[in-house]
Amino acid sequence: MRFATYTAEGGTFYGAVTDAGMIPLNDTFPEWPTLLDAIKAGGLGELAEDAQGRTPSHTDYQFEMVLPNAPRILCVGVNFPDRNAEYKDGSEQPKYMSLFPRFASGFTGHDRPLIRPPESPQLDYEGEVAIVIGKGGRRISQADAYDHIAALTICNEGTIRDWVRHAKFNVTQGKNWDNSGAIGPWLVPFTDAAQLDDARIITRVNGEVRQDDVLSRMMHPIRREIEYISTFMTLQPGDVIVTGTPTGSGARLDPPQFLKPGDVVEVEVNTIGTLRNLIEDEAQ
Amino acid sequence: MRFATYTAEGGTFYGAVTDAGMIPLNDTFPEWPTLLDAIKAGGLGELAEDAQGRTPSHTDYQFEMVLPNAPRILCVGVNFPDRNAEYKDGSEQPKYMSLFPRFASGFTGHDRPLIRPPESPQLDYEGEVAIVIGKGGRRISQADAYDHIAALTICNEGTIRDWVRHAKFNVTQGKNWDNSGAIGPWLVPFTDAAQLDDARIITRVNGEVRQDDVLSRMMHPIRREIEYISTFMTLQPGDVIVTGTPTGSGARLDPPQFLKPGDVVEVEVNTIGTLRNLIEDEAQ
Repeated sequence: MRFATYTAEGGTFYGAVTDAGMIPLNDTFPEWPTLLDAIKAGGLGELAEDAQGRTPSHTDYQFEMVLPNAPRILCVGVNFPDRNAEYKDGSEQPKYMSLFPRFASGFTGHDRPLIRPPESPQLDYEGEVAIVIGKGGRRISQADAYDHIAALTICNEGTIRDWVRHAKFNVTQGKNWDNSGAIGPWLVPFTDAAQLDDARIITRVNGEVRQDDVLSRMMHPIRREIEYISTFMTLQPGDVIVTGTPTGSGARLDPPQFLKPGDVVEVEVNTIGTLRNLIEDEAQ
Repeated sequence: MRFATYTAEGGTFYGAVTDAGMIPLNDTFPEWPTLLDAIKAGGLGELAEDAQGRTPSHTDYQFEMVLPNAPRILCVGVNFPDRNAEYKDGSEQPKYMSLFPRFASGFTGHDRPLIRPPESPQLDYEGEVAIVIGKGGRRISQADAYDHIAALTICNEGTIRDWVRHAKFNVTQGKNWDNSGAIGPWLVPFTDAAQLDDARIITRVNGEVRQDDVLSRMMHPIRREIEYISTFMTLQPGDVIVTGTPTGSGARLDPPQFLKPGDVVEVEVNTIGTLRNLIEDEAQ
């Protein structure tokens, strides 16, 4: 079962995704006006039951960012060994992970354009697995961490590379451009540790493989991410953690290869699906 | 006129602040269930009209974080000249400002305790002016910037200092501890440029002045902050910008002086008011 947020007939819906179209679910659950509300209520199981056996009623639709009202999105930086080496600063594997928030407003959905702004030619991709918290908590142990995950999705954590280095600290201004990234296509309920432990991320630009790695090689595994983040802030249902990208972003190629209008980026995760976006220049 | 979010009689309200108590306003405006909704609707003027001449009905109340559901809070780092020098890295005045998001969930209200966690003895204060956006926009010019501000408030941008340096990039994990900072006591509608241009921040710990500076000395003035941030993201009503702290945080004293249980921190801004918080250790 997969759940998406989408627009159809001039309105915004959430529903179950089938190959034949969308089964809208928000009408059945008026107490959960958005998919985020269903997550907060622990309602993915009820959504799945309701969708069972129903015929898709929306065949003409557009995907939206899967949780457009996600209140808190935390991204983990530099979390694969070769990516730490890419920084060529001779640093050892870091003891703690790098973390930065991104606002939901910077993300679009599956099959929607990522926008290259006139201020920079350095729009870059980063394919990642994102987890959605289903059960809140503070100081969660690694042993319990997976019990707090409701669902999985995919993030293209698109970045305006030169703006990441504008300031002495922090990557904020390179990471929060309108429509610079995407999250989707859908949420997959998290029911089996293998969905993460056996996950593999492959990012392709115009069909060419640029990133290809397995989550089991992360320096800070997802169980540790949940433990560490929940040390300082109480995790809440609906929180999203974007768990880290493998080596091979465009900035690290020699010479660097940034995204251009017309390029197609696909982020495929074997246990989730494929998130695809076309690149466009911002309308002037 | 000043507006606050507060709890009384077991419920959460927003209203007008008077010396004799609170005039609740959310009952009059059911279409604006929170102060944030009133900001989004451009409704501060209507709130003021409604409050005019009314008698306070809540005299026993507690302040809350002034916009507890603020969706996006962006903080400007290292924005006073001496504070750049404090870093002693020989760097020139930076061309661009440092920016980092903080989640609303990390802030409490006026007269509520800031919590020192068991993981660190390095809870530190940073007194700042915060602005609340009233009119959205993208690529806003410095000349127009003040037209986009609805209200002002004060932030104690409390920080767990050693956790700021955990990672190669980004200060996230030192800046987002539960109840580590405060925003309040109230919103003051922004009606006159002098409210910012003549503002002076004084931070006191147990009555001793630790920070004292004027906004006119900022390296990146507030007009420039709005211009720069709105280059990469469309500002929206209800966005909060925490505009930067003067030199004199506890970490920069010799020897460093961090906050201890029982300490009282006051951040006074002549054009807004005084935000006061007591320090407590986290309950074990």
